[in-house]
Amino acid sequence: MSGNSGTPRGRFITLEGGEGAGKSTQIGRLADWLSSRGIAVETTREPGGAPGAEAIRELIVKGSIERWDAMAEALLMTAARRMHVVQRIHPALEAGRWVICDRFSDSTMAYQGYAHGLGREPVDQLQRIAIGGLKPDLTLILDLPVEAGLARAHARGTQTPGTGEDRFERMGHDFHRRLRDGFLDIARREPERCAVIDATADIDAVADAIRDAVASRFELEKS
Amino acid sequence: MSGNSGTPRGRFITLEGGEGAGKSTQIGRLADWLSSRGIAVETTREPGGAPGAEAIRELIVKGSIERWDAMAEALLMTAARRMHVVQRIHPALEAGRWVICDRFSDSTMAYQGYAHGLGREPVDQLQRIAIGGLKPDLTLILDLPVEAGLARAHARGTQTPGTGEDRFERMGHDFHRRLRDGFLDIARREPERCAVIDATADIDAVADAIRDAVASRFELEKS
Repeated sequence: MSGNSGTPRGRFITLEGGEGAGKSTQIGRLADWLSSRGIAVETTREPGGAPGAEAIRELIVKGSIERWDAMAEALLMTAARRMHVVQRIHPALEAGRWVICDRFSDSTMAYQGYAHGLGREPVDQLQRIAIGGLKPDLTLILDLPVEAGLARAHARGTQTPGTGEDRFERMGHDFHRRLRDGFLDIARREPERCAVIDATADIDAVADAIRDAVASRFELEKS
Repeated sequence: MSGNSGTPRGRFITLEGGEGAGKSTQIGRLADWLSSRGIAVETTREPGGAPGAEAIRELIVKGSIERWDAMAEALLMTAARRMHVVQRIHPALEAGRWVICDRFSDSTMAYQGYAHGLGREPVDQLQRIAIGGLKPDLTLILDLPVEAGLARAHARGTQTPGTGEDRFERMGHDFHRRLRDGFLDIARREPERCAVIDATADIDAVADAIRDAVASRFELEKS
């Protein structure tokens, strides 16, 4: 698919994983690496990434756990994603820029579909209705044992107190175990699109594994 | 369907129509009339009617017209409806109380499906996914020519300035014409469930027509 000017469509890369997997750090590293190779890159995040979507983010990530059930969460996440795709991701890709996004539809599937028990089918249907089933070209799943991830997320929360964005971190150990298993099942179902990255390694090693996966998927020379 | 205690399920009545049709006034009248007959009644409204749903209402009814597209609006309205049904409507009906609601799924169909041009199918699908296709037992569609409705809504806005809840009123004449036609088409498709009420008449006459429709639908004696 090409943009109006004949520019080749950009590539769409998502990073996924539970809390504390190090996605933000790795997105910065990957963006720097791609930029250094002359690729125009945008980084963004979900829920958020567009004005209306950021307002929805405020509703979802803060407040009491009982405020939304799994279905309402999936609908809100998908509404935010709709505006993110329409206002930001689609225009960037059409203009030939690459987009690296911190979480996308796989997070709705893993959090609401698997961990909250909504099931795969309603989450899949919502994505088809709302964004026509748009899928990333490559999804990097940063995998980490539950205990390690929650410890990292907790340490991060202590370092930057007051953001209040801890509603999902507070959901308990079993929730986070189902979440991890969900991401791994998603990767097993779509091995062409998904690469599982061992996130227990140090930052440089994880960044290197991510560059390997990206170079392989898009036939880039690695250095 | 009965509640745990064997109490008969309450009846679910919705009022629909464009801006300025007089729904709020008529809901008060209808609730008073049902109460006077010994029926336990709750009145509520959409978007809203539950804590999370009211927060979504704030997002939807205020701000710039371009903030959401039709699909995002439909998803947000449906997320709010989900919590409204789970936390308020379903428990009330199960406890045997009647619920009168100012707008429900038909408004999403008329506003986003017809007037904004999203089409019937995605709106229907969202309702099936989110609320299992729950339908009112009776829907009263208050019908009014577009000019009359907007004039009334405008007068109301002047009387209670500062609420800022005028995002839909600002959407133009053609939008409101499609909206009215949409509600009338919904009524034609489901004549068993929907009654179209001429809302150009004075308040007492409209209230009387509504009581006729309710008495007929639920086999109540009218006075």
